[in-house]
Amino acid sequence: MRMVDLIEKKRDGYSLLDEEIAYFVKGVTDGSLPDYQISAFLMAVLFRGMNEEETASLTLHMAQSGDLVDLDAIKGIKLDKHSTGGVGDKTSLVLLPLVSACGGVVAKMSGRGLGHTGGTLDKMESVPGTQVIQSEEHFIKQVNDIGLAIIGQSKDVDPADKKLYALRDVTATVESLPLIASSIMSKKIASGADAILLDVKFGSGAFMKTLDDAKSLAHAMVSIGKHLGRDTRAIITDMDEPLGQAIGNSLEVKEAIKTLKGQGPKDLEELVIKAGGLMLTQGRVAKNVEEGEKMIEQAILDGSGYRKLLELFSHQGGDISYLLNPEKFSEAKYAIPVKATHRGYVSKIDCLALGLDAMRLGAGRAVLEDKIDMSAGLYLHKKVGDYVEDGETLLTIYTNKEEVSDIVQNIASSYQISDQKVERAPLIHEVIS
Amino acid sequence: MRMVDLIEKKRDGYSLLDEEIAYFVKGVTDGSLPDYQISAFLMAVLFRGMNEEETASLTLHMAQSGDLVDLDAIKGIKLDKHSTGGVGDKTSLVLLPLVSACGGVVAKMSGRGLGHTGGTLDKMESVPGTQVIQSEEHFIKQVNDIGLAIIGQSKDVDPADKKLYALRDVTATVESLPLIASSIMSKKIASGADAILLDVKFGSGAFMKTLDDAKSLAHAMVSIGKHLGRDTRAIITDMDEPLGQAIGNSLEVKEAIKTLKGQGPKDLEELVIKAGGLMLTQGRVAKNVEEGEKMIEQAILDGSGYRKLLELFSHQGGDISYLLNPEKFSEAKYAIPVKATHRGYVSKIDCLALGLDAMRLGAGRAVLEDKIDMSAGLYLHKKVGDYVEDGETLLTIYTNKEEVSDIVQNIASSYQISDQKVERAPLIHEVIS
Repeated sequence: MRMVDLIEKKRDGYSLLDEEIAYFVKGVTDGSLPDYQISAFLMAVLFRGMNEEETASLTLHMAQSGDLVDLDAIKGIKLDKHSTGGVGDKTSLVLLPLVSACGGVVAKMSGRGLGHTGGTLDKMESVPGTQVIQSEEHFIKQVNDIGLAIIGQSKDVDPADKKLYALRDVTATVESLPLIASSIMSKKIASGADAILLDVKFGSGAFMKTLDDAKSLAHAMVSIGKHLGRDTRAIITDMDEPLGQAIGNSLEVKEAIKTLKGQGPKDLEELVIKAGGLMLTQGRVAKNVEEGEKMIEQAILDGSGYRKLLELFSHQGGDISYLLNPEKFSEAKYAIPVKATHRGYVSKIDCLALGLDAMRLGAGRAVLEDKIDMSAGLYLHKKVGDYVEDGETLLTIYTNKEEVSDIVQNIASSYQISDQKVERAPLIHEVIS
Repeated sequence: MRMVDLIEKKRDGYSLLDEEIAYFVKGVTDGSLPDYQISAFLMAVLFRGMNEEETASLTLHMAQSGDLVDLDAIKGIKLDKHSTGGVGDKTSLVLLPLVSACGGVVAKMSGRGLGHTGGTLDKMESVPGTQVIQSEEHFIKQVNDIGLAIIGQSKDVDPADKKLYALRDVTATVESLPLIASSIMSKKIASGADAILLDVKFGSGAFMKTLDDAKSLAHAMVSIGKHLGRDTRAIITDMDEPLGQAIGNSLEVKEAIKTLKGQGPKDLEELVIKAGGLMLTQGRVAKNVEEGEKMIEQAILDGSGYRKLLELFSHQGGDISYLLNPEKFSEAKYAIPVKATHRGYVSKIDCLALGLDAMRLGAGRAVLEDKIDMSAGLYLHKKVGDYVEDGETLLTIYTNKEEVSDIVQNIASSYQISDQKVERAPLIHEVIS
């Protein structure tokens, strides 16, 4: 087999065989293929696409390119959840304790935040003492003991993806549906879960900008799951404005706690109930989604989800006195209110801008080496559809930085106020399974 | 400027600015751009194309990537000619002496043969003593002295093309019209000629397989010439069967001599008259193409073209006793006739197959390092449209190799004989200027 022939085949719009894709992934992983052939191939894939079989094949070979996490020692159907990333997305910290409290077995490997999107691991580390790097043995034992663990992915999982992603980033081949779908799903497959719930977000704050693109990605990933024998479902959700009210690590943990106590923002609660209903169905804890949703609502009402959160953190070394008394989280030095300059209805919030501004305030990373300020971030008092008086506070900026006037200015201009009443777009658009 | 942004721009179908293309070519030439970005860009160009301005800009920057040949010391309009390559294409050896004999100033830098196509330099070297590697000074002096020189291109001309071509070859990005056109034209531009005649061939023995592809390439190259201020014209010619009757180096030189004496094959004569008329017009020696064609015919009739051939070789060290007595050329050890197995009309000759078979007999190179057997080749007694009796010789194989039975078999099957009378396709399809 010669790589140039595979490039030509894809270039001319033909489908590749499983053994051809295996040859490609092997060559990527062991370094025998030169980068220039890999990148030419990726560009050909970007233009020509891949069919469902090719994409599933690519995903499987990528997953098998490194260590496979073996979760056989865990009893029950192992559930995983993945979000394509958004602003203020603390869903996992609320959803997974609830699912676990209802009897679902949740074994999640998570990532760090980068750019305008946050990462669950970073948010967890805002609770002092929390260890997100755990051995596979500890991970398996914890899931068996309490039905829930959230840890970072080990270094040797899916090396093909790391190599391909690094090349895609510098060759303008990131935006290829089969490449995006296989990159996400190969890591999930390698992590060993039996069933996967995907939260595919769209809108200005998401990676996918349009509903159509999000649907296409969701369909591609659900199809991969089907081909590879994993119960995979996707929920398509709006990220045209931030999720909930808090953006920033400890701010979001506090909001997660409030939501688990039934006092959280309605959009976040709506999302965890719908997603939880699906996951409980996938884990065969609930007979159907409606029953699952009721169980999640009950786990909010009776506090069992909140207690599971405490268990999660205490099993991973976290100081749960912070969760019991959220006022213990250190506050940022400066809290700067941004006020409306005229009355009306919030008609639009520039979600991407807020995400990037929160990052610049210290809440996120521009590059992987950046250090995060756990207390920095934004708190949105008003969201799309809310009425606001002239001079009323729209949001509060939390930062330890001195020179933020340009960021403040930028944040202020990211709110649009209209004279007309504005309807909020629905949060959940579709469930794909 | 970042290369990833240029890749993205081209990927999304936008046109690149001159300074962006300059940045690309500079990075290719000085090695500052990694190969993986170059190849991703080439694949994006293959899918998206380039407009006339971009292609001209790419050509100019490639031409300027290395040494530019300065022909200012040559008086008059310097003429160059380029063929996209074919089987039995000895046109330059007939055409250029004729043009020069009529008063055209011909300064041609030529290439070696590779694969199924021959190269003018190799054919010239079949005349003992001939030096095709000459200094720029000698080249200029010879053109000023006798109005004609044909030499090899110096090593430092167009390094960007060498680098890009090597990458295209292994990344399935050879077949891109703007990349093909700029590769050919950048070398012509760097060689310093004022006016260029392109012989763009199509058919089974040519690089372009269809008339439409040949036209597109011709238009692209003529457009480049226009944008860069060179009088560029193209002639679209058939290469579905070999040109003339001889394939192989000394066999073709002998045919060139015969043609200059008015005893050559009609297709070759037709081509040199048409091409010569065009070149004499480009050199402002003739008022129009018809006048130019008449001058070429006259130069065949009066032997001045033939005498110019002798001058050319004697100025480049060739032993012209071979040209005066072509029987001096050493003959191949074996002359194997291939005979018709039934009578009828030759309806098709597999031109590519004959080119490749001639190469395998020793007449050409599979790789650049191969050594050529000057006496090896084929002589076609019958061409498309000719009537042939059962048992009559179709062509003669000349070779010094012992074990050629498979090649002979292959050559025999490359002729198709039909009961029906067959019309030859016209040789010259179009002139583009």
